Amino acid sequence: MIIVMNNSATDEEIDFVVSRIKEKGLDASISKGTEKTVIGAVGDERLLDPKLLDNLPGVEQALRIVKPYKIVAREWHPEDTVININGHPIGGKNIQVISGPCSVETPDQMKNAAEGVKAAGVKLMRGGAFKPRTSPYSFQGTGFEGLEMFRKAADNAGLPIVTELLDVRHLDKFLEHKVDVIQIGTRSMQNFELLREVGRLKVPVILKRGMSATISEWLMAAEYIASGGNHNIIFCERGIRTFETYYRNVLDVTAIPVLKKETHLPVIIDPSHSGGKAWMVAALSRAGIAAGADGLLVEMHPTPSEAWCDADQAITPTELKELMKELTAIANILGRDIAK
Amino acid sequence: MIIVMNNSATDEEIDFVVSRIKEKGLDASISKGTEKTVIGAVGDERLLDPKLLDNLPGVEQALRIVKPYKIVAREWHPEDTVININGHPIGGKNIQVISGPCSVETPDQMKNAAEGVKAAGVKLMRGGAFKPRTSPYSFQGTGFEGLEMFRKAADNAGLPIVTELLDVRHLDKFLEHKVDVIQIGTRSMQNFELLREVGRLKVPVILKRGMSATISEWLMAAEYIASGGNHNIIFCERGIRTFETYYRNVLDVTAIPVLKKETHLPVIIDPSHSGGKAWMVAALSRAGIAAGADGLLVEMHPTPSEAWCDADQAITPTELKELMKELTAIANILGRDIAK
Amino acid sequence: MIIVMNNSATDEEIDFVVSRIKEKGLDASISKGTEKTVIGAVGDERLLDPKLLDNLPGVEQALRIVKPYKIVAREWHPEDTVININGHPIGGKNIQVISGPCSVETPDQMKNAAEGVKAAGVKLMRGGAFKPRTSPYSFQGTGFEGLEMFRKAADNAGLPIVTELLDVRHLDKFLEHKVDVIQIGTRSMQNFELLREVGRLKVPVILKRGMSATISEWLMAAEYIASGGNHNIIFCERGIRTFETYYRNVLDVTAIPVLKKETHLPVIIDPSHSGGKAWMVAALSRAGIAAGADGLLVEMHPTPSEAWCDADQAITPTELKELMKELTAIANILGRDIAK
Amino acid sequence: MIIVMNNSATDEEIDFVVSRIKEKGLDASISKGTEKTVIGAVGDERLLDPKLLDNLPGVEQALRIVKPYKIVAREWHPEDTVININGHPIGGKNIQVISGPCSVETPDQMKNAAEGVKAAGVKLMRGGAFKPRTSPYSFQGTGFEGLEMFRKAADNAGLPIVTELLDVRHLDKFLEHKVDVIQIGTRSMQNFELLREVGRLKVPVILKRGMSATISEWLMAAEYIASGGNHNIIFCERGIRTFETYYRNVLDVTAIPVLKKETHLPVIIDPSHSGGKAWMVAALSRAGIAAGADGLLVEMHPTPSEAWCDADQAITPTELKELMKELTAIANILGRDIAK
Repeated sequence: MIIVMNNSATDEEIDFVVSRIKEKGLDASISKGTEKTVIGAVGDERLLDPKLLDNLPGVEQALRIVKPYKIVAREWHPEDTVININGHPIGGKNIQVISGPCSVETPDQMKNAAEGVKAAGVKLMRGGAFKPRTSPYSFQGTGFEGLEMFRKAADNAGLPIVTELLDVRHLDKFLEHKVDVIQIGTRSMQNFELLREVGRLKVPVILKRGMSATISEWLMAAEYIASGGNHNIIFCERGIRTFETYYRNVLDVTAIPVLKKETHLPVIIDPSHSGGKAWMVAALSRAGIAAGADGLLVEMHPTPSEAWCDADQAITPTELKELMKELTAIANILGRDIAK
Repeated sequence: MIIVMNNSATDEEIDFVVSRIKEKGLDASISKGTEKTVIGAVGDERLLDPKLLDNLPGVEQALRIVKPYKIVAREWHPEDTVININGHPIGGKNIQVISGPCSVETPDQMKNAAEGVKAAGVKLMRGGAFKPRTSPYSFQGTGFEGLEMFRKAADNAGLPIVTELLDVRHLDKFLEHKVDVIQIGTRSMQNFELLREVGRLKVPVILKRGMSATISEWLMAAEYIASGGNHNIIFCERGIRTFETYYRNVLDVTAIPVLKKETHLPVIIDPSHSGGKAWMVAALSRAGIAAGADGLLVEMHPTPSEAWCDADQAITPTELKELMKELTAIANILGRDIAK
Repeated sequence: MIIVMNNSATDEEIDFVVSRIKEKGLDASISKGTEKTVIGAVGDERLLDPKLLDNLPGVEQALRIVKPYKIVAREWHPEDTVININGHPIGGKNIQVISGPCSVETPDQMKNAAEGVKAAGVKLMRGGAFKPRTSPYSFQGTGFEGLEMFRKAADNAGLPIVTELLDVRHLDKFLEHKVDVIQIGTRSMQNFELLREVGRLKVPVILKRGMSATISEWLMAAEYIASGGNHNIIFCERGIRTFETYYRNVLDVTAIPVLKKETHLPVIIDPSHSGGKAWMVAALSRAGIAAGADGLLVEMHPTPSEAWCDADQAITPTELKELMKELTAIANILGRDIAK
Repeated sequence: MIIVMNNSATDEEIDFVVSRIKEKGLDASISKGTEKTVIGAVGDERLLDPKLLDNLPGVEQALRIVKPYKIVAREWHPEDTVININGHPIGGKNIQVISGPCSVETPDQMKNAAEGVKAAGVKLMRGGAFKPRTSPYSFQGTGFEGLEMFRKAADNAGLPIVTELLDVRHLDKFLEHKVDVIQIGTRSMQNFELLREVGRLKVPVILKRGMSATISEWLMAAEYIASGGNHNIIFCERGIRTFETYYRNVLDVTAIPVLKKETHLPVIIDPSHSGGKAWMVAALSRAGIAAGADGLLVEMHPTPSEAWCDADQAITPTELKELMKELTAIANILGRDIAK
């Protein structure tokens, strides 16, 4: 850590900062510049909270120089991690598309959705049984009944399932239904209790970025899961909140090369929730794959205009099939492959 | 709801929208403008999701005109609600300051903190037993042991306690320790499971605004609690996330008059977490009370530089005492009173 | 325009709003819903400012339903506009890359840069003679001398030039040097005096999006230029300001399909200023073209580490050449062509 | 400056960074930590651009430790600056309110406005002759004719005038009309040509914060003016752009204590443009003064509902008079005075 003293700091103030650093078991090196004195704290800076130094007299700011995340950092694990989802690899050269409806509605809808997924050559299916809704008066999902419908439809089609966990108390049932990938939604990215619980499992986890989470906070949320022992983490960029009101969120494609640099884990995007409109999905999906994403989480509904939620953002099975062709061509240009 | 058709919409497209509106039990009125046709959906528009209409052919946009919240809305409850916290009223003419340390550390620290609270004339005490921390490697709070220390110190001083609930599974213990006010933190504002659970109680709830939650989402989060039967809700503005990096968050004082217009429930501010620095607390506190807030949630620590977390943002007991004088004077100008 | 009255609005208040609408030459239609009364203003709503109605007694909100832009709107001009830049078309099926250094430094640097541009098959060259810098103490560009160097180097290589106009007083000299495309920078997007001046010319204009400009404000800024008679406008998305601090700005790829829907004019992206780092440029460029952009404005320097400004974001001539191959392949998948 | 090397940096890479630092005339000190090597550049770091080092091989990041602004910094000028506006002091203990209509409309309107200003005890008058409007089709101000009306009405009432400069070419006329304070609007905060021109004068300048400008950029914009020789600069916080859509902008009160810490120059707020609604003005004004602002720039119109622009945000002369009483009482609590 680097502690910058202000230009009127006294020797006593400098000494006091040094003593604080040493108390925590680190060493201190002082360098006096022309305008400022800078103190370097040498040792494991994770033991030192910059806020403990920030408000000491004479201190202008305390800056971390070591990254606060470790297990998820590429710095300590240079090769790409490939995660195996029931035989389907994601990461490295392997791109995976995950598709299905926003919410599980009826057995028929799920059967048709599963067929649409298969027909497009997609290998993994998504669907929401529990839906986090802004209003208490909106449809809240079909719950465990929905989860069962989903499991059945997916089993018939031979597809692994991806679904969102909202409540730690649901975890046993999720395991009972052999959910293949647990999704942590954008509103739960810093629900640390939930992160800790999925950190105890081996089931792959899709960790969506909080609507206004920084890259660093997102990596730290993953570190919560990883530090519990579960290293099967897939990051999912789903759009961030900005001042723009024309579209729901802004898909942050810059996050893709940045995460690929910072972490060895796979990174996918959600082109459906970011823009919030079906007509944007193809453009955003192509952008994501072209920027280097390892996959997509895309909403498809057998008949979008009948969907029980987010009816305006699901694409049709036919559109999914067309999209897969374009995406495969783009992946090939980058020397990669989409499972089909 | 108002449905604006685009300027090339056909009569068939207009008819189809009308049929959809009628299916949901509402009536439709069509008015043809010079450039656009507008359809009004007359009836209880809460039954109609704009997203179900937005993507129909010929539709440009569907706009709600009725507010999606009801129980918390001032529209249906014009008088200020006054909430009674163990004999201490908040709301209407009554302002309450809530103070205490960021985290519960030791029995001695809590004893000293409680004395500081009392000496300043503050009537309610805060303290965190469970701490949501960005890093899994940071201090996570003293847990139930901390809650017990807190209860004991507060009881000795005769102070009601305010503490944050992070996990639905902790609720029984919170009730057992007779927590007087349950705080829902910024990261949990849309943890709908948690909201539903505290909605079943009668205990007053402080609902902090999500770091990037809109006013409307915040009101809807309160509606989750209220719709369960618990109407004892206090909004707490704690700073929003913006592009600015000099300070942690931006205290949104505009939210105060806006909430006072939209809801009958009390609104307080947190001057400690918003700015993130002790030297900003007095200015932000004064701004909040001057803007019409019903109270403050302010961090105070007997010896801030020894605090186990957020050491840079707590004020001292002496500073709290001084602050109370300024705030009382400002409150009086507005014809209000701070409990002392 | 739609005027929503609040649920306690009186008949007098409704009548007063109607009289205001009629004063402005529009007609009014009243529809009473179950909770709210809605007044429709029928006629040319551009004559009516919602703010004039918003604060009348009984009014809850006044909403525009007609878009405030006209000449640039696709609604009134469904086909793509193709702009001819000295024989090089942009728009429709034609993609153009524009490349060159951040700032014009020396005749040699510009000669080498022009060669790099040509070697990569790029048809248009960029370079800044006047640089808007955050600090008055930073290098401010080589000015008209630089413009001359640029013109000479580009003429020798047979390349049209693109350069930024900062000051209305520079315009004559720009025309004298036959600048082929005038760039309006992000800080000038709402410099309406500048927009009006370039609106009087026929020279194509690249209009960069303001760092925190909404899509609607951006379209209106273009409308300033267009309403003066100059319809040769190219939109350039260059990253927006958000809460994220890891990278300079967030490239908003969603803006691409959205602008393509709202306007008939070409849309390009700037992958250099958005991310701010050379190592992000390839990923962002691919994302932009894959999302449907009509071109790129990308910084290239013969020796980036020697650049006088933004040394960390320029790519090398070799990298540009490689990038052109990938981009061409992606363009082809979308049935488009990059001029080469 | 501090240059942090990544943990696989070689000795050659470290040496190369050191040589770069020395080339610029600074000295380098190397300290090897347990995980990272850190290089300190000792000397005048304003000569060194972090971007020149950031992309060198082995470098993780280059961080400034000295502030990039100097003349405006309190660090080098600890006492508050008091600016004299034609006999009316602002800064130190002196608070000034500036009031008047959004735009100059007619001689009568300006006469009535000036009377309203005087009746409230306000000493300085504002009014816009040139209006920067989002749409080219909106009212653009009454121009020089308006400026003349303004001057005349203000002279009759004995009030100094404050008005916005949009175009460098208008400057001569502004001086001819003896504009007492030149306002640089939010869209012009980084119009560096304009800043340079007003930097050559002695006339006080109100520098509004860009809608999404950081504190640091704002201070640097002031440094542009100051470096030209004009030190009579007043900062004006007018609301920042965020994700919130309920109100136009978020008044950033935290900026007040922060600027008071960073600069010796006066800081005022604009409660009218930030919220955008007349009913918010009193609350925001009180918040600003309570947070320590040196003044207000507040819109008042003799008959707001007749205003030619921003009709929804002006308060009446009577409201201004009432507001002055509250503000004076708050100022007194803080040991300050509002000129009356």
